[in-house]
Amino acid sequence: MPEHSRTPQRYRGGELVIVIDCADLDRSADFWTDALGYLREGSAGKIYQTLVPADGRGCKILLQRVPEQKSAKNRLHLDLRTTDLATEVERVLKAGASLVTEQPIAEAEWVWHILADPDGNEFCILQPPSDYWQS
Amino acid sequence: MPEHSRTPQRYRGGELVIVIDCADLDRSADFWTDALGYLREGSAGKIYQTLVPADGRGCKILLQRVPEQKSAKNRLHLDLRTTDLATEVERVLKAGASLVTEQPIAEAEWVWHILADPDGNEFCILQPPSDYWQS
Repeated sequence: MPEHSRTPQRYRGGELVIVIDCADLDRSADFWTDALGYLREGSAGKIYQTLVPADGRGCKILLQRVPEQKSAKNRLHLDLRTTDLATEVERVLKAGASLVTEQPIAEAEWVWHILADPDGNEFCILQPPSDYWQS
Repeated sequence: MPEHSRTPQRYRGGELVIVIDCADLDRSADFWTDALGYLREGSAGKIYQTLVPADGRGCKILLQRVPEQKSAKNRLHLDLRTTDLATEVERVLKAGASLVTEQPIAEAEWVWHILADPDGNEFCILQPPSDYWQS
């Protein structure tokens, strides 16, 4: 993907980027590129690895190597909203996630599972009601 | 903004959304809409409030009311990358953020401050080197 085809995620004052802490940049990059369909932007430094959407559109992710381990539930997390929960959960588990919820959670026509990345960072895979995709 | 003009953040299996825990949906929505230039999508329920970019392009944010308070450093956070650090920090402090770093951090031509939203969720405002914006 040529760099000039990038369309960054804008916010009022510039560009918005998601940063994810991890213990091992390569392991985390392998996981998140596969799970999200992102690509590495350049190679990893000692502390940082940038991931970009494969189609160049939108929010970069910056993986940040940190010395400390996770100690509490994340207060920011990613929602992966999809049309087929079971298939998507199976795919992302194969990419290296672990399943936090044994049974799916259902609420107001939404159904989802909580998973965790290789560092234990929680994220959700959700199947919204079908009219979600029409809006 | 008419709903049909939305261009969601795509990932390989659907749509990618950022979820932020908070104690008070209104307070958090006031802060993040101002800080990011986002808009409320509909009104708040008991637990959830969706925010969308004002121009309709890209990553939604879902504010989620949770009972527990923050207990450790966030392992996911947002980077707000801008061209004028001092001006942007001042603007976002006025929106209701608090400053975590007394002095800016400088590393490899990047300079940044760590701030926190009204719930104490850390985020960074960063000024990348000038050639960052040319790529």
